[in-house]
Amino acid sequence: MALKFDAALGTSVVVFAFDGQHLRSLVGAKSLEPYKGAPMLPTNWVKANDSVEDVAKRMMNRVLGMDQIYLEQLNAFARVYRNPMGRVVNIAYYALLNWDEVKDIKLQEGYRWVNYNDEPEMIFDHNEIYEMAKERLKRRVKRRPIGFVLLPQRFTFNNIHSLYEACLGKELDKRNFRKKFMRSELLIDTEETVFEAPGNKKPSRLYEFNQQKYEKLTLKGYDFKF
Amino acid sequence: MALKFDAALGTSVVVFAFDGQHLRSLVGAKSLEPYKGAPMLPTNWVKANDSVEDVAKRMMNRVLGMDQIYLEQLNAFARVYRNPMGRVVNIAYYALLNWDEVKDIKLQEGYRWVNYNDEPEMIFDHNEIYEMAKERLKRRVKRRPIGFVLLPQRFTFNNIHSLYEACLGKELDKRNFRKKFMRSELLIDTEETVFEAPGNKKPSRLYEFNQQKYEKLTLKGYDFKF
Repeated sequence: MALKFDAALGTSVVVFAFDGQHLRSLVGAKSLEPYKGAPMLPTNWVKANDSVEDVAKRMMNRVLGMDQIYLEQLNAFARVYRNPMGRVVNIAYYALLNWDEVKDIKLQEGYRWVNYNDEPEMIFDHNEIYEMAKERLKRRVKRRPIGFVLLPQRFTFNNIHSLYEACLGKELDKRNFRKKFMRSELLIDTEETVFEAPGNKKPSRLYEFNQQKYEKLTLKGYDFKF
Repeated sequence: MALKFDAALGTSVVVFAFDGQHLRSLVGAKSLEPYKGAPMLPTNWVKANDSVEDVAKRMMNRVLGMDQIYLEQLNAFARVYRNPMGRVVNIAYYALLNWDEVKDIKLQEGYRWVNYNDEPEMIFDHNEIYEMAKERLKRRVKRRPIGFVLLPQRFTFNNIHSLYEACLGKELDKRNFRKKFMRSELLIDTEETVFEAPGNKKPSRLYEFNQQKYEKLTLKGYDFKF
């Protein structure tokens, strides 16, 4: 069979962050024809002599101005006709960011934050890539504590409850969830409180993660039954 | 940035099967220069107008003569210098096969079964691909019951114990393992027995999987703590 160097490489990154109540994701706009201006995931071509992960990291740096982002390979999207220009394999990554670190960043032109379930219709198979990242996040949240990355250092129980509801895409009975989560011994009660919304009569307690316990669970994984 | 269609696509498949005592894997030999004759994973070029998964399936059909193989994408291996011929992205898959179905198959020339941990040094990054497949199998066996695929319809407890030891790469205390496994209610005692080796004084009981229970666990996953 003839060896053909006639495919192109691209990389997209699905970025998730949690603003305390809602998961958010980054969407860009296509800068060139075809489909100029159309919504798309942050995406870049990868030259034959360039590392896919480096390209993804440099792109994140350009879009967000952050040079330290943990990326994980999501999947290779390689359907023959996914891109009208020819055979383009998209090696996609996903990233979890802390909202406190990104909320004030001036995004590169064309980029915006969208709510987790309000993603627009995007070009090519980018909605499919996005869906797979959501599935990955859902599985991840059941298997490993991911709060350290997605939550601020101190957070209320409502924050963590909202985070799990958002990741799992379903309502979780608050009392049950609290009981199960407390049993994990992951949370440290800081004994401080905060008023979560103006007008609230009762303040909410602030928690931190128990780092040791957390790392142990991150390492060996757990199984949260909700 | 100039758009360059100058990468090539390939696909490798890591195939695992379990012969009752040992895990086995398929290794081929390179048919062309460079490295003609060198050990490699079953691998094929993917033409720009061909589906990666279809190519992987057709290759498995050629090597094994089986046209129904469940493949799962493992990862895209895309390091810049992984192949001396140029930028080749390898979208690798892994497959679990039933030994009873493959043991008598006359393999395509150049292919052979090797023991799980006795894989040869292979070309390019194929040992890395193989390692990742082993990691996947290890994680899989902790999360989902995979016996249906890897074990014959009826099997002894020793078979299943050996399978888990092989997948996890460590010794498992037999009594503890039995207790934990029995608690899962996955096994049905067929009340029949078999002499596992000539000279054995005591016959071993034969089990089957409880299909309903199995499917439920496959769906929602579990967490086996060994």
